[in-house]
Amino acid sequence: MTRLSDSARKMLEGKNFAFMTTLSPNGSPRVTPVWVDTDGEHVLINTAIGRLKQKNAKRDPRVAVALTDSANPYNFITLEGRVVEQVSGQIAEDHIDKMAKRYLGVDKYPHRQPGERRVILKIKPEHVFLPQSR
Amino acid sequence: MTRLSDSARKMLEGKNFAFMTTLSPNGSPRVTPVWVDTDGEHVLINTAIGRLKQKNAKRDPRVAVALTDSANPYNFITLEGRVVEQVSGQIAEDHIDKMAKRYLGVDKYPHRQPGERRVILKIKPEHVFLPQSR
Repeated sequence: MTRLSDSARKMLEGKNFAFMTTLSPNGSPRVTPVWVDTDGEHVLINTAIGRLKQKNAKRDPRVAVALTDSANPYNFITLEGRVVEQVSGQIAEDHIDKMAKRYLGVDKYPHRQPGERRVILKIKPEHVFLPQSR
Repeated sequence: MTRLSDSARKMLEGKNFAFMTTLSPNGSPRVTPVWVDTDGEHVLINTAIGRLKQKNAKRDPRVAVALTDSANPYNFITLEGRVVEQVSGQIAEDHIDKMAKRYLGVDKYPHRQPGERRVILKIKPEHVFLPQSR
């Protein structure tokens, strides 16, 4: 198991916004803003089943993630990796509420659509880049 | 000619950092932090000949760019497009100095390597996303 560095972990556990790139069916890159989290090993991105990034990652698990520290734009992480697992069910529903708490300060994620099923994309980083000395 | 919106243009002309995703030879996404500029129609990214993102964009021009407003992380742009031209020579050398002025406040780009040749990647956006009302 490869642990993320403490610096990377701290940024991934902060109230920081990220951009995730997935690959479209024709192989072109598609980038979307996302909230992020980590379990210390994987980058966790919570989305809904049926969204483009979820479908893209299912077809081709290769993704890239870039994250900026909202307190300091010179602090960032870029990484490439693979979505090694997609976790749906109660774990994913609880996780989006945890994310809503972090990012919005509310107990329940307020943007659920009728019938929406949440899913956690578990990304195993293969290359991680942080600027030196962070 | 498709003009970028005033909001997009303003963000691309600001002191804002972006992430550019190119496609590796095996088709996987690769993301790197970049400075950005615009001519009103294209997104302009200045890099050096021989860098991975330059070679990737030459082989497969499909790229994605994500930019965050350094003053407000809720303001961002994501876009996908193609590198329609790579401009090297004096134009690109002058342009990196202009970028150094904007981002670093100095007249000359201070990180030139011996023998380095700068090149502007001219990206024609095909899809642009800005959050509503910005």
